[in-house]
Amino acid sequence: MHWLDAVRWNDDGLVVAIAQDWQTGKVLMQAWMNREALTLTVQEQRGIYWSRSRGKLWRKGESSGHVQELKELRLDCDGDSILLLVEQLGGMACHTGRESCYFNRLHQGEWVAEEPVLKDPAAIYGNSGETNIE
Amino acid sequence: MHWLDAVRWNDDGLVVAIAQDWQTGKVLMQAWMNREALTLTVQEQRGIYWSRSRGKLWRKGESSGHVQELKELRLDCDGDSILLLVEQLGGMACHTGRESCYFNRLHQGEWVAEEPVLKDPAAIYGNSGETNIE
Repeated sequence: MHWLDAVRWNDDGLVVAIAQDWQTGKVLMQAWMNREALTLTVQEQRGIYWSRSRGKLWRKGESSGHVQELKELRLDCDGDSILLLVEQLGGMACHTGRESCYFNRLHQGEWVAEEPVLKDPAAIYGNSGETNIE
Repeated sequence: MHWLDAVRWNDDGLVVAIAQDWQTGKVLMQAWMNREALTLTVQEQRGIYWSRSRGKLWRKGESSGHVQELKELRLDCDGDSILLLVEQLGGMACHTGRESCYFNRLHQGEWVAEEPVLKDPAAIYGNSGETNIE
């Protein structure tokens, strides 16, 4: 079987993709891939996703320069979730200028933004409009 | 705003939930939660998911004993993905008896099962039928 056929795509032809820093183990973000995005991720050895909101391929870092270099690709036991171990160039995955998108921690019934903003999003993206918001 | 209302549930009323070992940083599994599952996860301080295949709440570890004690709960920047930092009792999250569900690594165009089976699934579940397969 071709390795792409081991993936259980959902009804929209997508699979969950989780990006994790290959050295620190920090979970950076979660997005989605279609067959083309996954194929290109492996071919180009970088994180390439399917943006649901924009309805097109999203080469992570195409505007920000914050490319995710692929170190390892993993598939879960039932084939519907993919884990990318990556080197996150620029040290930030989130469009808010933080290292990780998971910066809201539940504390006493409220979400508290915990991680520092490393760079002003306006400085990251200029007027390009690329964000992590799918 | 109530913290539950900050979550962007999908059309099925679900949100992606990723469980990560709070000490090693290992990504253990990915499942789904509905509003009730997330509420109970916080109330009971353990990983409780919505099983899409069984159409019911899934208290991880209810049959295996491999409960996930919640250490920290995080929400991503656009509110559609949740990260649980957990202590994985029994040291394995996967129904195959492995620590992590992401045991298939892509190597030269093939998925290679890499992690050791720590315990025979038959010994974990007996005839209870609980698995991670949603």
